[in-house]
Amino acid sequence: MVHVIKIGGNIIDDELKLDDFLNRFAKLKGPKILIHGGGKLATSLAKDLAIDQQVIEGRRITDTETLKVTTMVYAGLVNKTIVAKLQAKSCNAIGLSGVDGNSIQSVKRNDLTIDYGWVGDVESINTGFLQHLIDNGMVPVISPITHDGKGNLLNTNADTIATEVALALSETNEVNLRFCFEKLGVLTNPELDGSWLRILDRKEYEYLKDQQIISKGMLPKLENAFRASELKVTRVEICHADYANEQGESFIGTQIL
Amino acid sequence: MVHVIKIGGNIIDDELKLDDFLNRFAKLKGPKILIHGGGKLATSLAKDLAIDQQVIEGRRITDTETLKVTTMVYAGLVNKTIVAKLQAKSCNAIGLSGVDGNSIQSVKRNDLTIDYGWVGDVESINTGFLQHLIDNGMVPVISPITHDGKGNLLNTNADTIATEVALALSETNEVNLRFCFEKLGVLTNPELDGSWLRILDRKEYEYLKDQQIISKGMLPKLENAFRASELKVTRVEICHADYANEQGESFIGTQIL
Repeated sequence: MVHVIKIGGNIIDDELKLDDFLNRFAKLKGPKILIHGGGKLATSLAKDLAIDQQVIEGRRITDTETLKVTTMVYAGLVNKTIVAKLQAKSCNAIGLSGVDGNSIQSVKRNDLTIDYGWVGDVESINTGFLQHLIDNGMVPVISPITHDGKGNLLNTNADTIATEVALALSETNEVNLRFCFEKLGVLTNPELDGSWLRILDRKEYEYLKDQQIISKGMLPKLENAFRASELKVTRVEICHADYANEQGESFIGTQIL
Repeated sequence: MVHVIKIGGNIIDDELKLDDFLNRFAKLKGPKILIHGGGKLATSLAKDLAIDQQVIEGRRITDTETLKVTTMVYAGLVNKTIVAKLQAKSCNAIGLSGVDGNSIQSVKRNDLTIDYGWVGDVESINTGFLQHLIDNGMVPVISPITHDGKGNLLNTNADTIATEVALALSETNEVNLRFCFEKLGVLTNPELDGSWLRILDRKEYEYLKDQQIISKGMLPKLENAFRASELKVTRVEICHADYANEQGESFIGTQIL
């Protein structure tokens, strides 16, 4: 079983939480891949540099200056900080952006109504390269910066990358895809931490969406999770970072069916 | 023959010059590794963020905020920009910092008179890992950010990294180490571009140093070059970026003997 773990921004922003999560991730046995977002660091750096940020429906509009900021923060500071910490925990991590070894190629989003700028939608995963790394005991740590094969970097959604990486590896592996964040799973009441669902299927998801019980920010994550689950990935879960490495009875989270 | 090429900051700072250099580098046949510095980008980002920069004898004092800046610029923006451009030129580049695959471990500099901060001196190269990558047709592109194995990133001199990588690979390969920059080689008169030496040996170097003909900034580069040449590296050269891929008669530069 290959573990593909996505870790969200709220954990990355907090040094203690990140360290705690990385301890758990390092303990996870067998082949594994970590995909990280960037958190609020990119936003605060852009602010310090007086680069206006525009976010439409949860997606950051990425002009040239914002692309530089996200590349510096995601592919540079966040990625290398995580890899250094994992190396210190005897986990042979290798930080990758989509450019490295052509691991993730994407295509610049062409939206007729909104110009997202340097935003990429995943087009292909270099499965052979990632498989080769994990077969050799390495642990890829992937930042959400990809490229178009024409020399341009593209800012890409980290949940989508996790989904596509999990799907690509599912061709020849059992894969467990986990989206880890700061909640216990999919909540039926955002005000109640204890209201997490143990399982969620498409039908119930559509119902919760219609009732506007599932909050807006969760929708893209859940669309990714259902895509992974329905197409090929063995097991897809949404859970708290504290349960990233838990298996069986001791695992808490929402399994996507 | 493995080509180990170091490219200096003045080329990186200029988009056209960088692109021209990368065209040449991509054309270079056989196994190869690129090591890059960071140029003035880190200095200008630090200035924009109002982080005071202190440089003593050509070495940047690296406090915690400056380490973040150099990691963002070198390991993030510069490294990924170069790798994206090389991928577009059908060169299967993989960007690495010393943390990635534990490729370069270093030790925090312990100087009794000057506190350099988060500056590292190279301790070990993961030769097997680099060899494995080049044996598989990949082209490592190395940024000058290393780590201490205890979870800390360290700012490290790129000329030294190039030297140590070349020495490590020399155990089992013929290696050609080239330091490429904006001059035609080692000049005997810094005002005269045409005053480059075809060859330079230790004796002549000591003489030029005593006469203060070789400028201060060149001294650490030349110490690295002589170390590489005298210990093990097959061929060591200092040349203009325009000659990075030239061989034989068409090569212009200074060979270190």
